[in-house]
Amino acid sequence: MDIAAEIAKRAQETEQRILPYLPREEGYQRTVIAAMNYSFRAGGKRLRPMLMWETYRMFGGKSDIIEPFMAAIEMIHTYSLIHDDLPAMDNDTYRRGQKTTHIVYGEAMAILAGDGLLNYAYETAIGALSKEPGNPNVGKALMVLAQQAGIYGMVGGQTVDVETDGTSEVTREQLDFIYRLKTGALIRAAMQIGGILAGATKKEQEVLDRAAEKIGLAFQIQDDILDVTATTETLGKPAGSDARNGKATYVTYEGLERAAADVEQYSHEAVTLLSSLVVKNEFLMKLIEHLIHREK
Amino acid sequence: MDIAAEIAKRAQETEQRILPYLPREEGYQRTVIAAMNYSFRAGGKRLRPMLMWETYRMFGGKSDIIEPFMAAIEMIHTYSLIHDDLPAMDNDTYRRGQKTTHIVYGEAMAILAGDGLLNYAYETAIGALSKEPGNPNVGKALMVLAQQAGIYGMVGGQTVDVETDGTSEVTREQLDFIYRLKTGALIRAAMQIGGILAGATKKEQEVLDRAAEKIGLAFQIQDDILDVTATTETLGKPAGSDARNGKATYVTYEGLERAAADVEQYSHEAVTLLSSLVVKNEFLMKLIEHLIHREK
Repeated sequence: MDIAAEIAKRAQETEQRILPYLPREEGYQRTVIAAMNYSFRAGGKRLRPMLMWETYRMFGGKSDIIEPFMAAIEMIHTYSLIHDDLPAMDNDTYRRGQKTTHIVYGEAMAILAGDGLLNYAYETAIGALSKEPGNPNVGKALMVLAQQAGIYGMVGGQTVDVETDGTSEVTREQLDFIYRLKTGALIRAAMQIGGILAGATKKEQEVLDRAAEKIGLAFQIQDDILDVTATTETLGKPAGSDARNGKATYVTYEGLERAAADVEQYSHEAVTLLSSLVVKNEFLMKLIEHLIHREK
Repeated sequence: MDIAAEIAKRAQETEQRILPYLPREEGYQRTVIAAMNYSFRAGGKRLRPMLMWETYRMFGGKSDIIEPFMAAIEMIHTYSLIHDDLPAMDNDTYRRGQKTTHIVYGEAMAILAGDGLLNYAYETAIGALSKEPGNPNVGKALMVLAQQAGIYGMVGGQTVDVETDGTSEVTREQLDFIYRLKTGALIRAAMQIGGILAGATKKEQEVLDRAAEKIGLAFQIQDDILDVTATTETLGKPAGSDARNGKATYVTYEGLERAAADVEQYSHEAVTLLSSLVVKNEFLMKLIEHLIHREK
């Protein structure tokens, strides 16, 4: 099987693991649940839960304690997309080839669906505490999730992104901050949690975290490159939107060629770091290599 | 000291307990933190953390493990107000006599400030796990917080409120659902968490929960009454807004007189339930009586 097919297969397996954690569309509040699930089911690469699972597996993790965390991180990722797409934010009509949540359910319901998903992510992950009450790593994993999702993580990155949006005046320093946090934080959370729950040592966790940081950077820069080079059809969302919005990106600062070289460099560094560990996961290595050559 | 002065004093003490949990306004993301803190500091009755503290004290709670939960529930309450006030929701310009968050910081930042507060609430409460790692009640309290704040609690109530808003077609059943969840869920969470963390028995927790439900109903109906009878100046927000928005409330259905009688009835039932417990808290009783005669 080639790697693209293998990734597609594992993305599907990841979906099978996380979809059962979605709430049922029933009760007086079923509209908000439908809006949450619409966005969650819209697909995507399931990259964060997949990275979490592969890291967990790499360190010999064997329990299903990881599953609520896999679902939770994808819920947090999804809520951030719903709120990002709102008229007051990026005002996007399409995402992954489907109409965005506020287009289908209205703006008020999209705000609530985002709030509902963020909260349900915690409801789901906190549920893991009672599954293994004696396991202190569950509490640690919860803390990592909260820290990387919040103001010192993803929300922090979104803040600077919003403040500098629509202007080309974002400084290189601000751009680094946005990249490290807006996309990077949840990727770090995914791999950290995988390691923590599988019992990785402090030292191993540090290596994982440095690798995750580089994967996040490579992933985000590749996103900018695709915005310039890919077609709207391939992306499932409007290509060239950064340029149209006058938004400065890594590509604006460094040019396409240098950006592509940096993606290679970061992912090479990530692979080298992971190779330095005693434990191995061949698929994870190939996944990282593949991510930087992706076309959407 | 009369009860109003006593409540004001304890509200201030509650503030002193929770304000230190706010994040510092620093770093690239300081704008979102400033917006979060602006809303949080805007005041209010601090009813939820106060109820939590008084319930905790009633059951003999003596550790500071309760504090992060007091801060967290007020953060969740505050985030819900920020998002409720947004143009796509209630579109309010004033709250507690101050400009709402989106008026001061813009709509995008207000959305992020709400997201940031909700997430920081969990970051703060999850921090309690490492304070008392061997205490299983901390995990239980976390679960109650998540359940009452989310789609089966407050967000669920907001959903039906949004769906029926601007129409007078809300049914009496839907109205009950909104009342039980939109305001009621966090009041229940406050008292449940106070009891759980202080080691109340299962039976005591049940009594607490029934009392809290009635307090929540009394509180919400009194809110509707004040919207009809109070002045904008006293309320710190526009009075008469329900009628102007053609919004059906408990008062629309039952009339002012019956509504006022029901407030008395519910709060009487709450006091009776609490009186049936072995443990006592005189102030809590007076607080409940006072809430239903409040003028703002």
